[in-house]
This record gives sequence, structure tokens and C-alpha cells, in this order.
Amino acid sequence: MLIIMNSQASEREIEEVAARVRALGRAAHVARRDDETVIGAVGEGRRLPAEALLRLPGVANVVPLPKPYKLASRDFQHDDSVVMVRGVPVGGRHTAVIAGPCTVEGEAMLWRIARHCRERGAAILRGGAFKPRSSPYSFQGLGAEALAMLRACGDELGMPVCTEVMETRQVEAVARHADLIQVGARNMQNYSLLSEVGKTHKPVLLKRGLSASVKEWLLSAEYVLAEGNPNVILCERGIKTFEESVRYSLDVTSVPVVRRDSHLPILVDPSHAAGRRELVGALALAGIAAGAHGLVVEVHDQPETALCDGPQALLPGDLEGLMGKVQKISEALGRKLFRPAREHCPLNAAGNDRHPQRESR
Amino acid sequence: MLIIMNSQASEREIEEVAARVRALGRAAHVARRDDETVIGAVGEGRRLPAEALLRLPGVANVVPLPKPYKLASRDFQHDDSVVMVRGVPVGGRHTAVIAGPCTVEGEAMLWRIARHCRERGAAILRGGAFKPRSSPYSFQGLGAEALAMLRACGDELGMPVCTEVMETRQVEAVARHADLIQVGARNMQNYSLLSEVGKTHKPVLLKRGLSASVKEWLLSAEYVLAEGNPNVILCERGIKTFEESVRYSLDVTSVPVVRRDSHLPILVDPSHAAGRRELVGALALAGIAAGAHGLVVEVHDQPETALCDGPQALLPGDLEGLMGKVQKISEALGRKLFRPAREHCPLNAAGNDRHPQRESR
Amino acid sequence: MLIIMNSQASEREIEEVAARVRALGRAAHVARRDDETVIGAVGEGRRLPAEALLRLPGVANVVPLPKPYKLASRDFQHDDSVVMVRGVPVGGRHTAVIAGPCTVEGEAMLWRIARHCRERGAAILRGGAFKPRSSPYSFQGLGAEALAMLRACGDELGMPVCTEVMETRQVEAVARHADLIQVGARNMQNYSLLSEVGKTHKPVLLKRGLSASVKEWLLSAEYVLAEGNPNVILCERGIKTFEESVRYSLDVTSVPVVRRDSHLPILVDPSHAAGRRELVGALALAGIAAGAHGLVVEVHDQPETALCDGPQALLPGDLEGLMGKVQKISEALGRKLFRPAREHCPLNAAGNDRHPQRESR
Amino acid sequence: MLIIMNSQASEREIEEVAARVRALGRAAHVARRDDETVIGAVGEGRRLPAEALLRLPGVANVVPLPKPYKLASRDFQHDDSVVMVRGVPVGGRHTAVIAGPCTVEGEAMLWRIARHCRERGAAILRGGAFKPRSSPYSFQGLGAEALAMLRACGDELGMPVCTEVMETRQVEAVARHADLIQVGARNMQNYSLLSEVGKTHKPVLLKRGLSASVKEWLLSAEYVLAEGNPNVILCERGIKTFEESVRYSLDVTSVPVVRRDSHLPILVDPSHAAGRRELVGALALAGIAAGAHGLVVEVHDQPETALCDGPQALLPGDLEGLMGKVQKISEALGRKLFRPAREHCPLNAAGNDRHPQRESR
Repeated sequence: MLIIMNSQASEREIEEVAARVRALGRAAHVARRDDETVIGAVGEGRRLPAEALLRLPGVANVVPLPKPYKLASRDFQHDDSVVMVRGVPVGGRHTAVIAGPCTVEGEAMLWRIARHCRERGAAILRGGAFKPRSSPYSFQGLGAEALAMLRACGDELGMPVCTEVMETRQVEAVARHADLIQVGARNMQNYSLLSEVGKTHKPVLLKRGLSASVKEWLLSAEYVLAEGNPNVILCERGIKTFEESVRYSLDVTSVPVVRRDSHLPILVDPSHAAGRRELVGALALAGIAAGAHGLVVEVHDQPETALCDGPQALLPGDLEGLMGKVQKISEALGRKLFRPAREHCPLNAAGNDRHPQRESR
Repeated sequence: MLIIMNSQASEREIEEVAARVRALGRAAHVARRDDETVIGAVGEGRRLPAEALLRLPGVANVVPLPKPYKLASRDFQHDDSVVMVRGVPVGGRHTAVIAGPCTVEGEAMLWRIARHCRERGAAILRGGAFKPRSSPYSFQGLGAEALAMLRACGDELGMPVCTEVMETRQVEAVARHADLIQVGARNMQNYSLLSEVGKTHKPVLLKRGLSASVKEWLLSAEYVLAEGNPNVILCERGIKTFEESVRYSLDVTSVPVVRRDSHLPILVDPSHAAGRRELVGALALAGIAAGAHGLVVEVHDQPETALCDGPQALLPGDLEGLMGKVQKISEALGRKLFRPAREHCPLNAAGNDRHPQRESR
Repeated sequence: MLIIMNSQASEREIEEVAARVRALGRAAHVARRDDETVIGAVGEGRRLPAEALLRLPGVANVVPLPKPYKLASRDFQHDDSVVMVRGVPVGGRHTAVIAGPCTVEGEAMLWRIARHCRERGAAILRGGAFKPRSSPYSFQGLGAEALAMLRACGDELGMPVCTEVMETRQVEAVARHADLIQVGARNMQNYSLLSEVGKTHKPVLLKRGLSASVKEWLLSAEYVLAEGNPNVILCERGIKTFEESVRYSLDVTSVPVVRRDSHLPILVDPSHAAGRRELVGALALAGIAAGAHGLVVEVHDQPETALCDGPQALLPGDLEGLMGKVQKISEALGRKLFRPAREHCPLNAAGNDRHPQRESR
Repeated sequence: MLIIMNSQASEREIEEVAARVRALGRAAHVARRDDETVIGAVGEGRRLPAEALLRLPGVANVVPLPKPYKLASRDFQHDDSVVMVRGVPVGGRHTAVIAGPCTVEGEAMLWRIARHCRERGAAILRGGAFKPRSSPYSFQGLGAEALAMLRACGDELGMPVCTEVMETRQVEAVARHADLIQVGARNMQNYSLLSEVGKTHKPVLLKRGLSASVKEWLLSAEYVLAEGNPNVILCERGIKTFEESVRYSLDVTSVPVVRRDSHLPILVDPSHAAGRRELVGALALAGIAAGAHGLVVEVHDQPETALCDGPQALLPGDLEGLMGKVQKISEALGRKLFRPAREHCPLNAAGNDRHPQRESR
């Protein structure tokens, strides 16, 4: 249920309504806009007394939230959320590109590839430390060692870093090193993990499960949001279909559906969808044209020797060509590609913002 | 098998190789480029004697065609085919928009909507005469009457017309009235129908089946090509997936896959995929950005009264906004949006070209 | 809408209600049970005047038909339909097995395999004359020649014959030779073909489309029924999924769903689903246990030389083992396997029954 | 790689070969049959020296393992594994039924429903303590409290108990209370969790992911097996398809595919697939007829008040009818339904066997 406060409502009235909601066994999430404050009352239990709430001082209206996800819904927040990842805006009218190797294979290759990415305009560095592999006998990543390498490299190049967390026991270490914590497709419905990253307040990149509906995906985002972490970025990465010419089918339809139903930013990852380098560019541009707020792409300078997913990695030169087209299409649609400053500049030591910014749609 | 003639081969040498191929129980399709002639030998039977063919005068090389589709393959023709639909180029570096009502409901509405489409830059007029409906009790279209209306309207406005054929017995009448014959998704594997439209030499718009793989789709195109009709345009219109927020999931991945593997033009139809107006624009742009040669979109000025598929029809104003963005994205990618001349001009009486043009990739 | 006549209603009253329904622009399908007659009023148009119909003599009740399919629905007919295919009952408490080669490759192989099937208890002989092949270069069947062979072989062995029709122009010839006309999966939404076989009154075997929902499938059956042909048998043959270890996934769930929602008989075809001999037996038994009224299986005695689908054909010995298990499972579920008489006996010259029988559920 | 010892090989020779394998950086899994011992060398690294291994004393042959899963493969173990769950055999020629409520809602309901299940022949009691729910606002289960109730109830009634574990931090508590640890569909690729339950040596019930291929599923089983826990039971529970009349489509094809490729037992769960009580029986029988080693079904005596998944729960009377048919079909296929002794008897205090038994196919 949404409780909409009238524009003259005082802080004290707002707090009293929130307290009443909590007394009724619900969580109270307070969303403030310039002209209006909305209190989301979420959770299960006996029916909320709408009439009684309406009579409280400062309450303008009380409306039900018909969708199963509440805090992720545009009904709860009409403006676009812009999640700040150590100074890089993701969402709203910004286009941001996350790039890097599939896996951190060592220090030299990470620094080399990270420089390639930064020079071509990528805003955030990605790299796998813990790798979910379908076979127990495949290379599983360098783990904690890779986390430290990523942090050092990102600090030096002035790039926020993004890496995947695979289980609750890794959350603390990953949150300490990364600016953006990725929850992978195979863990999209790992609810314990979602709750745990929800407690960190670090930005979370939530990939869509391989056969998750948009509704299920937004409900998974709700697990993070419900823990009080509003910094959720969604990432479409392809779904399973009958088509055999690609690994997964990038479902660009999810982009306008998410943007209609939710205020959260959404990126696309064409690398994992296509599984093949020569298709990545076309799918990346399709995602941007469909309204995505940016890309996650894999880059490698020696893909034939990569320990993981070499065939889908862009070469640095491919990334360069792609960035130019991404910029043109973004501008054609009234959006702006975020590009890091020419000079390498150390990251803002203050770290991430606790709350997303907002942009009117 | 492809037989590549050397650049000095005479017409007579070419004809003798083709005759030899036919004598071996295969069809011989001759493809000429500026500098080179290629003869495709297609069909089943005992192994072709590659060595003997290599020794014929004028033959430069003999190469197998590994893909199950032959004439549709880029191995057979490296350059893009540009199918001319009464003067409108579809394929290559052109972007073309086909628009109109789902169904021809009457003369007045057709003319009204056709004018809206033409004024906003659509190149080709679409409208259903025979409608494939999943229920026998739904409106099935005005049939032959609608064919005549489409022809008259297209002639007056200077727009080529496109309409669907549902069975072999309708082919003659549809081919007589339409400039572009649509084979719908549900008939993509109606092989008798494909052969029959293959015999007409009219341009054919072949929609992808709702669960057809790209390979199956190109094999269906091959049925048309193998009858000697090279004017095939493919149209991606969404596939069935588990996702419930849309009718079908527009598979934009098929666009770069088709463009890599085939020389045929490919359009996208975001209207039938999404099933809902508010998603059509984003999907249309995604298709263009992925490399499609144009769009098929449904337009209605009174969608709430439409006899069929009203909720997915764009309003004329929506089309206007979309065309501007299509133009910008086309140009960003080095392509050109075809727009009809300002003045209404009668169509070229000569009708369609018998053969596609070609453009180097 | 269903108009339920009271048990004392006279023939004349029934006919007058039917005439009234027709005057209102609907078709009137009359279904008689022992104790009750129901008139189904189907078609589109302005709302039917339920109150006025209720006041007609002999009318007991008037109820809406909420499902989009009407005549195929259990709401229209509560008892199971038992379609008689030249004396072989399909539906109700009977289990029937249709077997034979994928394709009629010649006279000798057809007779040899047909005898194998008959001796092992198959009730109906199948064999392809017109073959829908995804490539235009694959063997397309012997056509009309094969129809005559099938007829002669079936007559001699006392087996009704089943073969596929691919387009409207073949319907007359196929209906003249076959006892059961198959509409294949790729033609499930070829509405012109459905209407045409609906006009023949011959039993129709309607395969499920490769990505058709159960609702779409029943609507396709409705196209046949609406032409006045009540002899429709459904056949589940596998759907497209992401799973790569089989060609199609046999959707046994469709069996209890169809049996709940419709009175029509339903068979399963495990051969086309699995695509591999070693899986056919398990899937066949699964279908029977799920409630299917029988099987369609492919049999070949020299599968390695088969022109089509050899790897999925059972050997005669496999069929023998399968029939024993089918019988046991049928009996465990209170059903009876139909087996042809020991001696070869000429078929009933009278041909097919015009109307299905009925069995209380 | 498989190293097959000759039948006279001594224990010492076997141990020396295993030591050599470990020295080469691989794990060595020793599988003994009556007449033969096989050593599976699994893991990644430089190529194993097949010739050198062949020359070791006692080695009869050395063969590669082409499938990506090794220990789960029938190439590694030809005989069926029979996992003993506190005395209840699962696998081989046994049919076992696991039944109980979706969720443990309290002590009274658990005991009441458990007695219903036991009296009707269910061998193992299931009940959810930790519930994976797609919404954070849905009831999440009674947790640790429910574990204790399950243990007490199972001990009293003489039924082994099965419950789901959702994350690594719960593994210790669940393993202490349950006889069979369930890993749910949404966690099928939660590799950390798989490894953790692999370390417990308790029998594991591994549900198939909602869009997992059979190969991916067997690879997930491999994660458990590779930790030295051979007690893995697979459970097919339906996959996502386009069909809308059911929640998931029970993929019975996976049953014969798994049984061909793996020695592990496989059950089917028709309750979660269908989502609706009236379809559960037909799907259960289809699974048994396809070759499954048993069922997992949900039972409730007051489903309309159930906190979770009431519409899919069988009533006790439904279970009774189903068990009779399961027994008949099992027997028709030469299998035996395990039924608990009439009298309630305390469970064998010794707990689970550490190793599965084996049965020749």
C-alpha cells in the first residue's frame, strides 16, 4: 500500500505515519520527491486499515499497490532512479558502459585490458574473481586474490570496479573490494544471497535468470530493496529459447517492459547472450536503441588464450568502433554517454552514494 | 555445390556448364557479379563429379555448399540483395518502412490510414485481405474485395502494396493485386504455398514462424528461391518464449545472424511481437539498430474500434515520432531511410523488377 | 451458447430452435445424448437473445460457452467421443496403435512393414505419401502413387490407413484413399486446409503444432468441427523447448489437459518427439499412462536404409515388446487395447462412420 | 579418464594406481563391482599419460570419458545406483514415493498429514522448513523450528524425512535433522551450495532447474559427487515452456535420457509441475511409466487453508487412488513399489548408508 502525504506534511507527521505502519507489522519505506512524500507499506499480514490511515494528519491519499513487487515499481517511484557507482551515473538519461575481461586471469592481463577499456571510454571495469562454472572441473576463478587486483587496478585507473558474488559467505569480502556487486543469472533466485547483498548498501548489478520472467526478476530486485538497499541495477543477458545459432537470445523486449513498470536502471549484456564476438555489436546497439541505460561487455586482447569465454570477447578495436555507435544512438534518443575524463584520476575516496539520484522521465 | 567461372569465361562456356549440371539431375542457378559468375548446382542425387566439372572450359573453381540452404546463403552470393518492390529498394544500405492497418475493414478507413502512413514517410502500404485467425469464429477479412481496394489505394497514393496469401488457391489473385506477397508466420512451413509463390516472381515477404529456428526459416526461403524467384524479403516478428508480459518476444538476435549467413534483406515487425502499442517504438528501434533493413508496423487512427489487433496499432502521431528516430539511427549506422516523394505520384506501371539488385557489403 | 432442450422436447421443437439460431446468423450444431439434446450456437455476431431463446418450446436452459473453442469443449459434450476409423474405435476406454513406415518408399517395403505391424497388434497402418520436408532438396514422397499402394495394402491386410495431406488441392485424392487424414504439425494453423478436411467428413488426425498451446490446438480442431466434421482425433507429437538431447519434448501434460477440457480423443506420437529409437518406448508408455487413447509410432525393418527418419523407427521386435507393456498399462487403468483379429479380414466396405460414438467418462 | 583394473588386481595395485592419478593432479574415484574395479580420474590439467598408466601393474585398460560429467555417467558406473535413505531404497528396480505437505505450518498439521501419507504407502516424509519464495513478502517457512518437528515426526512414524536447504549456512542444521537433503530447482546451479551438501555424505535430492538442460543437471550432480558424496537422487519437476495451461511442463523425456546416460536414480515431482491437483495423478503415472524410480508429491488435508501451494496438493484420498495405480504400473514394468511396514517402527538409528547399493540394469 502507498500512503501519499500532502505537500505541507511535516517531518513529524511523516514519521508518525511510518511508525503506525510499522506498528501494523509492515516495513515503511519513505520516498521523497520535491513536491510529495510517499510511504510504501510492504509485507504480509492482516489487511491494512486504509480508512484509519487516511484520517492521520498529513495523509493525502492511500492507494493499493497491485503489483507483487512494490519498491521496484513505478507506482512507488515515478522518476527514474540514477544509481551512482563511485561517481558514475547509471540510469535516467545516462548511458554507461561496463567493460573488462570475463575473468581476472592475472595482474598483467587485467591491467592491460583495463587500460584498453578505459582509453576507449568504458566507465566501469568488470572482471570475474569467483566464477560460476557449470562443470566442477572448469577453472573457478582466482578468488580473493583477484578481488585485490581489481581494487588496485580500478583505483589506479580511476574506474569503479564490478565483480560477481556467488554465495553469502563471500558477500563481505566482495562488498569491501567492489563498487558494484554482481549477482549472476544462475543466482537470480538465490534469495539468501539477495537479502545479504541487500544489507550492504553497495550498488548491486542483478542479472536476469536464464528463464526468469520480468515479473520474477523484479521480485528478486525487491529482495534487495526490501533490505533497505535502493541501489539496484538490472541487467538483461539473454534467455533460453529453442534457437540454436546462439547461446541465449537477448530479450530486448524486457528493456521497454522494465522501463514501463519499474524506475530501476537496466543494462544489457550482449556478450553472454550471443556467445560469439561477431554478434555482440549488433545486439549492444539493439539494447541501447530499445532504451537500455548501458552495456556490460567482455573485452580481451588475446581471446584465443582466455581461460573462459574467449569467443565472445570483443577485441579492443571492436570496442572502439562500438563506442562510437553507442554514442550516436544515445544522442539520437536524447541520452548522454558517460565517458571518463581523459586523464586518469583517482576515485573519489568517499565511495558510493547511499541513495540513488532521481530524474524525471 | 558452387561452380565459380573465371572472369574471362564466355556466355557459351557458362551455358555449357549449366547444361552439364542439369544433365546431372540438378538445377543450375546462375549468379552474375561484375567480375565473376557463380553457378549454384542444387538438388539431391548421386555425388557430383567435382573433378570433371573443374576440367570444363571457363571453370575457375568448384566448392561445396555446406549449409542446407544454398541459394539463400552468403556463400552463394556475397553481396547484399536489394529487392525492388515497385521502385522501393528493400535491403542493402536502405531502410524501408511498411505500414498500414492490420486488416482492410473498408474503403474509407483504408484510404484514411494509408494517407496518414504516406504523409509520415512509410514507403509501402500493408493491409490484410485474408486473415489467418486462430478461431474459426473470428472476422476472417474481406477477401477479394479488399485486394481490389488495396490496389486502387496504392495506385492513387503511389505506394506499392503488401498483403498476405493464405493458401495456394489464392496465389494467383493476390499476385495480380499485390506488389509484395506476404507469407505469414503460421504458414512458414506450408511448403506447397512457398513453392506456389516461388513461381510468381513477385517479391515475397516471408515471416518467421513462431518457433522456427533461423536455419528452418532460411530453408523455407530456399523453397521460394528454388522455384526461380529471387525476390525474398525476410521478416522477424517474434518467437514464443515463456515470458508472459508480451505476446511474442522479438528475437533481434536473428537479425545479425541472418545478415551474417544470408544475402537476403530482413525486416522486423514489432507490432505483432509486442501486441501492445507502448512497446512498439522501442522494439522497432532495436530492430533497426541490430541491422534490419526496415520495419513492418501496424497503424490505425481509431484503434479502439479496429476489428483486429487494435491494441498493437500505432496512432498516426506515434508513427511520426518513430520515423524521426528511425531516420537518425539509420544514419548513425551509415544507412538511408527511403521516403516517398512529397507529391503523390502514380506507380511505375512496369511493376516489379524480376531480379534483385546487389550492393557490396 | 448452448441451448439445452428438455428431455421431452420433440424433433420438431428441436428443429425450430435450430432454425431460429440460424436466423440469428449462427451455425446450429445439434448434439443428442440418451436423455438430452444440446444445440450449440456458434459464430460471431451481435449478442444472442438468451431470454427469447429460453421462452421457445422445449428449451430447458441456455448457457454461455466461455471457452473460445465451442464444439471441441467438454462443456458442449460431456461424454468422450469415440471416432470410428473403419471399425477401429479411437477414444473413450479404447487404446489403439497406429504404426507403419515414416514414408512409403515402395510397394515391397510397405507390405513387408505393414505385415510386421499387423502381426504385432497395430490397428491402423500409417505411411507418408506427401512429405513435408524442411529442405526443398529432400525426398518429398511418392505422392499419388503411394496413396494407391496404401489403399491396396490396407484393404488386403484389413487395416484402415492413415496418411498426411499437405494442401487443399490434395484433399480430394487423400480423402478418397485414406481412412484417416493426417494434418501435420507444420500445418496445424493452415486454416484453409483445416476447413477443407472439415468438409470431407473423414476422420482427421490433427497433430499439435511445434509451439502451439493446447488452446490454439483445440481452436484448430474447431475449424474442422465447425465445417460439420465431428471426427477429429488429436495427436501430441512434441514441442520445441531449449532441451538439446531430443528433437522435441513430448508434452505429456497436454494429455490430461485435453482430456479435462475436451471430449475429443488424443494420441501421442513418441517417434517424432524423441527422434531416437531408444527413447520411443519410454515416451509411448508415459503417454498411455497419462491417459492417451493410443499411439502413433514409426516402424521400419531396415531403418539404416530408410529415406526419412530412420533413427527414430522402431524395429518390428521393439514394437512387439512395446505392445505387451501398452496392454498391461492400459488394463491397469481400466482401458482396453484394440487388437485386429488374428485372421486377415477385408475391411468393412461401408467405410467410416459419419459420426463418432460416445462413452460416458 | 577411466582406468579399468583387471579382475585379479590386488588392493595394493588399485591403491597404487589411485595414488599415481592423484600425483598427476586429479581426484581418483574408485568404483568396485563384483568382477571389476574402475578408477575414475577427474579434474582438469595437462593431458594424462594414458600409455604410462596402461603399463602399471593390474591395469586392464584405459578409456577416455567423453561426457563433461564423469562420476554421474553410465560410462563410469554401468549398474544402477540404489541410494539408501535410512533403509528406503531409491533407484534400480524399486519405486518409492515421497509425500507430505509443501510447508511445515505447525506440529498438528504435520503429524496429521504425515500419518495420512504413511497409511497410504508413502515411504519418505517431505515438508518445507526453509521456503524459497519469489516474493520477499511471502511466508518463508518456520525454519529451524520446522526441522525439529520433521525429525520428531519422522522418528515416531518410522519415516525418513526430506527437506530443502537454501544456502550454505543452513547445510549443517539441515543435514543434522534430515535424511534426504533437497536442493531446489532455483538453486540447481548454486555451485557453492552443491559443494557444501557434497561434503555431508547425506543423500541429496537434486531438483532440475526450470530451464536446465539434462546435461547441465548432470553437471550439477557432478558437483556433489566430486566432493565424495555418491548419494545423489535426481528429481524432474517441470520446465518452462510457452504453454500457459500449467505452471511448468513436466519433461518426462528427461527420464529415459537420464537413465540412458547416468546410473543415478531419478524421481518426478508432478505437483510443482502441474500446479493443479487434477493433473497430478496423470503426470505421476506418466513419470513412472517413463521409467522414474518414484514420486515426490504434495499432500494436504485442508488445502484451501494451506499457506503455500494449496491448489496443487493431493487430498489423502487422491493419494490412496494414485498409490494403487503406481503399484500396478510398476509391476507391469517389472519394478516393485516400496511400502513401509504396516506397524509404525522406529527408524534404524544407524542412519544413512554411506554408499549406494548397485543393481545390474
